[in-house]
Amino acid sequence: MDNKLMLMIPGPTPVPEAALLALAKHPIGHRTNEFSNIMAEVTANLKWLHQTENDVLMLNVSGTGAVEAGIINFLSPGDRVLVGSNGKFGERWVEIGEAYGLNVEAVTAEWGKPLDTALFAEKLQGDTEKQIKAVIITHSETSTGVLNDLETINRLVKEHGEALIIVDAVTSLGAFNLPIDSWGLDVVASGSQKGYMIPPGLGFVSVSPKAWEAYKTAKLPKYYLDLSKYRKSTAKNTTPFTPPVNLIVALHTTLRMMKNEGLESIFTRHQRLKNATRAAVKGLNLPLFGSDDYASPAITAVATPGMEADKIRSLMNKRFDIALAGGQDHLKNQIFRIGHLGFVSDRDILSCIAALEVTLTELGHENFTPGGGVAAAAQVFTQS
Amino acid sequence: MDNKLMLMIPGPTPVPEAALLALAKHPIGHRTNEFSNIMAEVTANLKWLHQTENDVLMLNVSGTGAVEAGIINFLSPGDRVLVGSNGKFGERWVEIGEAYGLNVEAVTAEWGKPLDTALFAEKLQGDTEKQIKAVIITHSETSTGVLNDLETINRLVKEHGEALIIVDAVTSLGAFNLPIDSWGLDVVASGSQKGYMIPPGLGFVSVSPKAWEAYKTAKLPKYYLDLSKYRKSTAKNTTPFTPPVNLIVALHTTLRMMKNEGLESIFTRHQRLKNATRAAVKGLNLPLFGSDDYASPAITAVATPGMEADKIRSLMNKRFDIALAGGQDHLKNQIFRIGHLGFVSDRDILSCIAALEVTLTELGHENFTPGGGVAAAAQVFTQS
Repeated sequence: MDNKLMLMIPGPTPVPEAALLALAKHPIGHRTNEFSNIMAEVTANLKWLHQTENDVLMLNVSGTGAVEAGIINFLSPGDRVLVGSNGKFGERWVEIGEAYGLNVEAVTAEWGKPLDTALFAEKLQGDTEKQIKAVIITHSETSTGVLNDLETINRLVKEHGEALIIVDAVTSLGAFNLPIDSWGLDVVASGSQKGYMIPPGLGFVSVSPKAWEAYKTAKLPKYYLDLSKYRKSTAKNTTPFTPPVNLIVALHTTLRMMKNEGLESIFTRHQRLKNATRAAVKGLNLPLFGSDDYASPAITAVATPGMEADKIRSLMNKRFDIALAGGQDHLKNQIFRIGHLGFVSDRDILSCIAALEVTLTELGHENFTPGGGVAAAAQVFTQS
Repeated sequence: MDNKLMLMIPGPTPVPEAALLALAKHPIGHRTNEFSNIMAEVTANLKWLHQTENDVLMLNVSGTGAVEAGIINFLSPGDRVLVGSNGKFGERWVEIGEAYGLNVEAVTAEWGKPLDTALFAEKLQGDTEKQIKAVIITHSETSTGVLNDLETINRLVKEHGEALIIVDAVTSLGAFNLPIDSWGLDVVASGSQKGYMIPPGLGFVSVSPKAWEAYKTAKLPKYYLDLSKYRKSTAKNTTPFTPPVNLIVALHTTLRMMKNEGLESIFTRHQRLKNATRAAVKGLNLPLFGSDDYASPAITAVATPGMEADKIRSLMNKRFDIALAGGQDHLKNQIFRIGHLGFVSDRDILSCIAALEVTLTELGHENFTPGGGVAAAAQVFTQS
């Protein structure tokens, strides 16, 4: 059915009508009081959302651009960095480190498994000469639905004392409790089309005082991604370059919505959506890709042994106008991924699972009790 | 009056209702056939607009990001480059070159004057060892309303044979005839909130085969701004990173509008808007900042001797909801700038000039015949 699309992918995520209408307002000039007033409120609310007094800077880039800025502003060629890599995005941060001539040590785990904190302990504790300048971690690995144990790895980084912790929080920020100040996270990067409930186009980077100290001696070249320019402008409620005005006006709207909902409620809701989705998948007798013990609050990956995952996605789209994400790289056609990030309600999960039941039945997967998926999700919802 | 703003600044420029409504459509997934179909048409139409068979790549960045990508993809540390600098943007490209460790030679002219082509001739002809790797030119210098003589400088670069010509066409593309293929321009960068008639958030870079040759040996580090990634993806009607889907859907709409209007008509319209604006300013007995001989089709800068330019802007905004741009840096409060770029009609110029007459009168500038500004603009419109 036309114009009936329901996005259950990890980004772009669903956008509330109020934000779409804000997006459609005619742009205003960005060198005006009116825009500065919006910037002031947006910046304050971003700090609230990030649970930090650190600078939270907004760039006109995708999530990848935000993470790249978060890396290159604080390091110099040849710097030794540890990069956690257990999925598509971890691999990307390795590539970025290499593109910039860093001395990258990838700490890998199989796709679908979490990073092994013991490996980080070993490397960080063994680094008595304090050569490791940064540890780069993907919090929620979007490609597999794995939530890495950032809290433990961060504690190890703190014990090391020298290294910065740089976090890709692209699909965890606004979905999972990530208390930047109380954990002492140095650099946290994220993107607008995720927990922020607006379309893609803005990246966010929070920067700690310790990271700003590192900035002073960091030698990697940068200009458009130079965060000090954004810091200077943000302090004056403006931007160094022409910003995507419409997106910022939409963000102004969604941040108010988030404040109304409250951080606690937002995190609880994502937890509930995750639990219901996972329960439902079990109810459908499909194997979850990755254990409940390290499951992302943003996305659930489902394995489809004996079935083509892309056929399921294709029929879900055709019959019910529900967009699911596929597997990436070697997981192509092996898994599908259900996004439950941002502007997603309990009802959306029920719709998605109910439609999935019909789809699976039509494709001949009958190894489940009809209604079993929905019933399992319903049970989570009635309990919480 | 609320919601009555009329943008006469050089960006963001006015956005047609159809594009605003397209912007407000719920985002779709970017890894879908539906999006790829849009990408295919957008890419084809971008080539049409750029008058080129070269790659035209779309990045989620501002105009500055696009120019930076246009520079850093084709050069290595220490490379000698000539950078034309006769305004705020020329100065910025000098800064970018320096930030990346290029051997930058700024070829300067006073703000408000065009670049001196003889200086380029001297340097390029004197470079018998072909050390100059690139010449970077701002075509329309937004800060002053000066249109540099790109055609002549490009011819000198062609005679040199080795250097690439890299063009900041941010406020000339879609306003002025810039035939990339017939002139042989290597790299041309621009931004969405200008001639493209959509809000800010997208940058564009066209790349010639000669520039791709230079890319192969270029050593400046890059990842998010690595144009080869965009080239590879664009060839498959997709994007390397999550794109600003809504802006691309809006661009899909405005490029169709531009095709309907036709290139010739678009350029003629901008020429007419420029001529009418300049005639009107003369009719108001205000000095134009910069001569008619090198006037930008996108923006007209007006000097205000004996008056505070910002008072004029402020009253125009308060009384008539017309946003004009101010002077930058040392020109602050010395000039104001009237944008006539993109979705601007003859009527808009008449409105602006009529309102300006009232404003000037209210501020005590009475050294003109009432109606003289509008009459002068009208004369241009009746003649053309």
